[in-house]
Order: sequence, then structure tokens, then C-alpha cells
Amino acid sequence: MQELKARILKDGRNLGKGILKVDSFLNHQIDPMLMQRLGLELARRFVHVEPTKVLTAETSGIAPALATALALGIPLVFARKSPPLTMDFTIVKESCRSRTHDKMVELMVSTEYLRPDDRVLIIDDFLATAQTINALARLVNKVGAKVVGVGTVIEKVFEHGRENAREIDAPIESLAVITDMDDGRIVIAD
Amino acid sequence: MQELKARILKDGRNLGKGILKVDSFLNHQIDPMLMQRLGLELARRFVHVEPTKVLTAETSGIAPALATALALGIPLVFARKSPPLTMDFTIVKESCRSRTHDKMVELMVSTEYLRPDDRVLIIDDFLATAQTINALARLVNKVGAKVVGVGTVIEKVFEHGRENAREIDAPIESLAVITDMDDGRIVIAD
Repeated sequence: MQELKARILKDGRNLGKGILKVDSFLNHQIDPMLMQRLGLELARRFVHVEPTKVLTAETSGIAPALATALALGIPLVFARKSPPLTMDFTIVKESCRSRTHDKMVELMVSTEYLRPDDRVLIIDDFLATAQTINALARLVNKVGAKVVGVGTVIEKVFEHGRENAREIDAPIESLAVITDMDDGRIVIAD
Repeated sequence: MQELKARILKDGRNLGKGILKVDSFLNHQIDPMLMQRLGLELARRFVHVEPTKVLTAETSGIAPALATALALGIPLVFARKSPPLTMDFTIVKESCRSRTHDKMVELMVSTEYLRPDDRVLIIDDFLATAQTINALARLVNKVGAKVVGVGTVIEKVFEHGRENAREIDAPIESLAVITDMDDGRIVIAD
């Protein structure tokens, strides 16, 4: 997606150690018009797998997941990291290491909103090591539902997310694929 | 907003002690089409105060804030509770008690994205005790910007949010105003 690639090259910052800062339009400050177009493009790529629900993890996944769910006209569920008072014990839970916070987190979803007959499209901001995405896929499996696709905004291929997510039997799409961040560069595939 | 009121009465659950569960369409599972209409309505109510930025707090505020920011065509910033690796020391910070998690949380915003000349519209899912909203307003004041409005989806008047937020010199709007949750009821003002 050319608009996204241009925006990453213009506003993204390589902080070293594979950390890409896109806080000015994706992760802390959000450009809602760009987000809407990202959601439309993700929806276009996955409409053929006929998803019934979008699943993401709080926090950074919520905006692209909402834009995608809106474009597809289906509900969105976001896995919580800390249970609010309204969350009862009818949940499934998985642990994973968060790349952006560099710590273990738990992801939990109420089984009220993720059902065995759901066809689930997993959406997240980054495909890096795929730890979050694999944990989300395990949540889907736990309730007996099916992952029909995985869509992310930015993929960092050098962190081997696709390889690590090879047990997910569904198409994986990213809107911008970063191939190299060595020596302060940001190299994006055509 | 009649559609929202009807949805709360249909799908909301009174868990006692003033806790309203709206996890099926607002807080855990999200109905994106409803969310878009909530954002349009909040935008309609605040367009005259000419906001330049929408500010919310992760996590539950993000969806209504994104829908509102999209309708207004302005950026959204969400205050973080735990700093990601990309967040450096150029931040402002405030503490408050989270009603839905019943614990103290810190809210932090990078001063890169909240500027002294910003006219800030604060958006959140709930107006309850107004602790989060007051903390967001203090963040705005800290950077020398101006709060021009506060918009929430659901207000629980019996938790005195408006009274507690009286130092905010800006209009406060809620799309559904709950007046009573005693004895398992959910009473919404006309």
C-alpha cells in the first residue's frame, strides 16, 4: 500500500534493535483518515474468506481492527490484558511476550463473544515475532472457532513472524513489509 | 440518542454496585456500525467548539474516540497506561483511579502529540466519577493546551461525574444518561 509506505518513510523512526516508532500516526497519535483506508484495504484482502468476527488485542490493535470490522460490517472483539470488573469467569486466557512492552502479558476473551461457529479474522498493528498473533489464534482454537485470516498493518520480516505463525492455517497479509532496519535504515519491500 | 438507549436497555446488564456491563457492543465486543454513528453524533455536538485533536485513555475510550476523530477529520491521541518501548521521556503523566478496574493507573501522553496550541476534545466511553476525564484534562493543562469539550457515550449521573469535573471550563455531553441503577434496574433519561 503506497500511501502507508510513504508515511512510514516520512514519519517513522528507527530507534534501533528493530524498534520502529510510528507513534505519530498509528500507535499513540492516530491519523483516523489513514486508519479508515488501512481498514478498507484489509477488508478488501479478506472479504473472500468470509469472516464473521474480527479479533485483536488491546491496545494498539484496536484502531486498525475497528476500521477493518467497520469496512466488513462485522463485530470486533478485543482481547483484554487486565480484566475489568465486568468480565466474569467465562473467559479463555493465553500468555505471550509483548514485543512493544518487552514483558509477558495475558490475553483474555469472554466466551460470550467468541463462539465455536465464528470465522475469525485476526488483525493487529504489527507482525513482528507473531507472539501476540499466535496467542490470539490459540484463544480462537480454545473456543473451537476457526482462524480464517491474519492481517497486520506493518510486518518486520527480520523478526520471522510468518515462520513463527506457520501453524495458523490461513492467509497472512501485511500492508507494509519492512525488510531491513540495520544501521538506522528503514527498507520497505515494493 | 434513541438507538443507543434502546441498545443499552436490550443488551446492557446491571451487575450491581453501579457497574453496567455493555461488553457485548461497547467495551469488549464492539459493534462498529453503532460506534460509527456514536462518533458522528459526538462530532455533531462538538464541531462548533473547533477542536484540533481528540484525546482519550486506553483502552475502552479508543473506539468512540476514533469514530469521533474520523467524523471531525482531526487526529486522535490516546493516553497510555504503560509506556511502550517507543515512548521516550518527553511525556506528561497523571494518576487516577480506574472505575472499571478498581485500581490506580497512570496516564501518559507524549508532548510531541499534545501541543500548546491544541484545542482538545476529550472523549471516553463512560462518564462515571470523572477521575479519568479529570486526569486527561490535567494532562491537557500541563502542556498548556485547552480543553474545548468532553464527550462520553454513557453517563451515570449517580456517580457525580459532572460535579467532579466542574473545574473543566467546557461543555460536557453524553449520548445516554443513566439516572438510576438501584434494585437491578437500568433507568435512562429521555
